[in-house]
Amino acid sequence: MKAPVRKQIGVIGAGNCSNETRALAEAVGKEIAKKGAVLLCGGLGGVMEAAAYGAKLEGGATIGILPGNCREEANPWIDIAILSGMGHARNALIAQSSDALIAVSGEYGTLSEIALGLKMGKPVFVLDCKWEIEGTQKTRSPQEAVELALALIGSP
Amino acid sequence: MKAPVRKQIGVIGAGNCSNETRALAEAVGKEIAKKGAVLLCGGLGGVMEAAAYGAKLEGGATIGILPGNCREEANPWIDIAILSGMGHARNALIAQSSDALIAVSGEYGTLSEIALGLKMGKPVFVLDCKWEIEGTQKTRSPQEAVELALALIGSP
Amino acid sequence: MKAPVRKQIGVIGAGNCSNETRALAEAVGKEIAKKGAVLLCGGLGGVMEAAAYGAKLEGGATIGILPGNCREEANPWIDIAILSGMGHARNALIAQSSDALIAVSGEYGTLSEIALGLKMGKPVFVLDCKWEIEGTQKTRSPQEAVELALALIGSP
Amino acid sequence: MKAPVRKQIGVIGAGNCSNETRALAEAVGKEIAKKGAVLLCGGLGGVMEAAAYGAKLEGGATIGILPGNCREEANPWIDIAILSGMGHARNALIAQSSDALIAVSGEYGTLSEIALGLKMGKPVFVLDCKWEIEGTQKTRSPQEAVELALALIGSP
Repeated sequence: MKAPVRKQIGVIGAGNCSNETRALAEAVGKEIAKKGAVLLCGGLGGVMEAAAYGAKLEGGATIGILPGNCREEANPWIDIAILSGMGHARNALIAQSSDALIAVSGEYGTLSEIALGLKMGKPVFVLDCKWEIEGTQKTRSPQEAVELALALIGSP
Repeated sequence: MKAPVRKQIGVIGAGNCSNETRALAEAVGKEIAKKGAVLLCGGLGGVMEAAAYGAKLEGGATIGILPGNCREEANPWIDIAILSGMGHARNALIAQSSDALIAVSGEYGTLSEIALGLKMGKPVFVLDCKWEIEGTQKTRSPQEAVELALALIGSP
Repeated sequence: MKAPVRKQIGVIGAGNCSNETRALAEAVGKEIAKKGAVLLCGGLGGVMEAAAYGAKLEGGATIGILPGNCREEANPWIDIAILSGMGHARNALIAQSSDALIAVSGEYGTLSEIALGLKMGKPVFVLDCKWEIEGTQKTRSPQEAVELALALIGSP
Repeated sequence: MKAPVRKQIGVIGAGNCSNETRALAEAVGKEIAKKGAVLLCGGLGGVMEAAAYGAKLEGGATIGILPGNCREEANPWIDIAILSGMGHARNALIAQSSDALIAVSGEYGTLSEIALGLKMGKPVFVLDCKWEIEGTQKTRSPQEAVELALALIGSP
């Protein structure tokens, strides 16, 4: 009955993105759910929405840590909405609450989460990311990203 | 497949408490789970632990928004740990993320959550609480507290 | 040349208040400045504005920790604006950054700051406050509030 | 008597740094103070301490937004200590509260502040920085960095 400690994987990326990026994010979300891990994200659109949608396709659990204070801001695939009301400072909560982070493409907000994650000592995997940040680990597919993350942090 | 928007009820109370208070909190947690709502709490001991334990007894979902940055600080009945790393400022996140708050007894931290909840316009129900704060609604039993909360915010 | 560690006194109270309350807050601000301490507040209107105005009348330093992310939200008597962008969670920063707190009347936001201050072990003095919270110290005048605060935390 | 709205310039950089970096940061702090702007920083060692020291050499005002909840963590050149108690999430407060940011060298924490600043639309100037982040403006000297910042945001 005790709650099993399920790994929490943060998927980070821009709120607006191309269809290619969206497809990658969805595949990351599916993979996370298939492996029994929990998907954490910022709860909004773009990469966050696609990843949550992918996770729900596989019956996974999805958590959105939102910048605002309104449940309606969450995308429709979010099970649990944490309404931080803290704006961009919520990026630190996403990084802190994730056992590992997977960045899919991404803009400045994503870069801040990558940097915060590295500062906190979290493993950070990147997919199709324009920045080359020392300490991140490049991956070639959603499957590889999730597998490497779980191999490192211990599955599920 | 779309995630149903389940109501999130915050249970707030002290990290150390009497057995009587613990029993009340456990009953609140059970009731929340029976009704299909999600239990939100601060993730630590005392009231937070008892409420999460009660919710897990009934197969409910439990979310802990912790002050620190370490998963091990969470009590064993927490499914999802949000590691805020923000100390007492996390009290605002609990209030903001809850559709309604139920205070069980409580000390200063609880009082801050009651006040923040009222400031944010959240309904706040109290059980066995030493403060008389205008705007809170006194209840006589865990069942009544959860029922009134869900009646007000709309179940589940 | 080393920066002297000046005491930081937080003045907390509602953003809208009566003229009587405003006069009390202004007198608190004046007294803080006369004693060479720094005034901390939430940076908005009502008690926060009156206290900052009082402090500036005496040439004091005024810091506003704002809920939003816009300098223009600060009242005109704020020297330094900390734009938290964190909404009500900024109340915890005000409590944490103050060596002592003085509450002037106040509503729910103030109550949350009183409770957070007490939780953090800060001395909390109250003037004309409707709540009776164990652990706060009632005072009868702005002068008494500031004197007691500085006597306790060490002046200036 | 009304408080003049002085520009707030955030100086960001690592808590441990080389003597060369320290010298750059000190010169940035001096220049900020000479121009009558306020220095904002994270309040700790390394770049933050050197910049605050430089500003105090010129009689400037120095604000430290600290990650912890203890005044003693601040370096000795900090006039006003904002004790966030929020850990790395305080990086968002530094970015938000600065009219412009100047990064001196820097590690992951600095990168997060650069990214958060850019996300918030703040001008970000960099000095001797290992990352090439689109949107930042490279500068060749502390003087140039401060002059460009003030030219852009309006002095002082």
